Amino acid sequence: MPDMPSSTRSQNKQQLLNRLRKIEGQVRGIYRMVDSDTYCVDVLNQVAACRAALSRVGVLLLETHIQGCVVQAIKDEDEAVAVDELMEVIRRFI
Amino acid sequence: MPDMPSSTRSQNKQQLLNRLRKIEGQVRGIYRMVDSDTYCVDVLNQVAACRAALSRVGVLLLETHIQGCVVQAIKDEDEAVAVDELMEVIRRFI
Amino acid sequence: MPDMPSSTRSQNKQQLLNRLRKIEGQVRGIYRMVDSDTYCVDVLNQVAACRAALSRVGVLLLETHIQGCVVQAIKDEDEAVAVDELMEVIRRFI
Amino acid sequence: MPDMPSSTRSQNKQQLLNRLRKIEGQVRGIYRMVDSDTYCVDVLNQVAACRAALSRVGVLLLETHIQGCVVQAIKDEDEAVAVDELMEVIRRFI
Repeated sequence: MPDMPSSTRSQNKQQLLNRLRKIEGQVRGIYRMVDSDTYCVDVLNQVAACRAALSRVGVLLLETHIQGCVVQAIKDEDEAVAVDELMEVIRRFI
Repeated sequence: MPDMPSSTRSQNKQQLLNRLRKIEGQVRGIYRMVDSDTYCVDVLNQVAACRAALSRVGVLLLETHIQGCVVQAIKDEDEAVAVDELMEVIRRFI
Repeated sequence: MPDMPSSTRSQNKQQLLNRLRKIEGQVRGIYRMVDSDTYCVDVLNQVAACRAALSRVGVLLLETHIQGCVVQAIKDEDEAVAVDELMEVIRRFI
Repeated sequence: MPDMPSSTRSQNKQQLLNRLRKIEGQVRGIYRMVDSDTYCVDVLNQVAACRAALSRVGVLLLETHIQGCVVQAIKDEDEAVAVDELMEVIRRFI
């Protein structure tokens, strides 16, 4: 991420790590719910919440990627690969 | 899940637990990727894969729920709440 | 939909037809926006709104289907096919 | 879309218009299916297909937007608004 101020970069990184730690805990919680035969609807609600949290991590990563790598590639007149790659990732998420 | 044969029930449960264990490992892998500044596109691909795995867990849970709780509630002529609750969960997933 | 009161059935049907008429209009609106070179972001917002409206039609149809066909099949002790078919449809939507 | 070759631009535009015309036909088809009480599962499959077609239109529009407007804004050193707007649109789609 060469053109982002390094303070923004490390802020985003810390936020991503915190969220991933929390998601890991959510997955472990779902494991325990299934293991102790919690009512399916309550488990399903937790799975939906966890999936939404993971989507938000994806969006934050995408934002970091666009502001960093993609912007830099375009400024370096080297956008063809960066834009193709970006579209590939977006397609996978939509 | 009163009306499923208990063998199917415990098979589904074991499959769910195995998948959740694997997803927990995927989330930890993504954490390490972010922590070691892996290229964003590679991280994003892992996030998309993990989210898809979580969706599949949701679908398997939903299937277990429908075949067990919902079918039983309908047979007991007690479907109103079960169907409302099911639609609520489906709405959250779509 | 054999076991729904016919008033509910025809109410849902009329609601579905109204929504589909509106969605058809939205699609034609998007066509005109593209044709007249409207700013991409405005077109994209319309596409997202139209897709959300279509999802809501899907959820309403699913609800009608579960309350009618699926409930009836289960009461007739003929649930195997109905539940498989339902899971297939849900999988396609998630 | 200032920096795309105008041939690509008009090709994409024609492709978008063709797809939107087809989606309009699909929506009308779904209307007729509901109106003539076609089996819910068949209607739901058409709704899923139509929603997927609309998502592909969204992705094509997004691609056109990124390759045109976003790349140009970045080259003009005027990326802040363009990147924010892009993230807003992506968030709406994910």
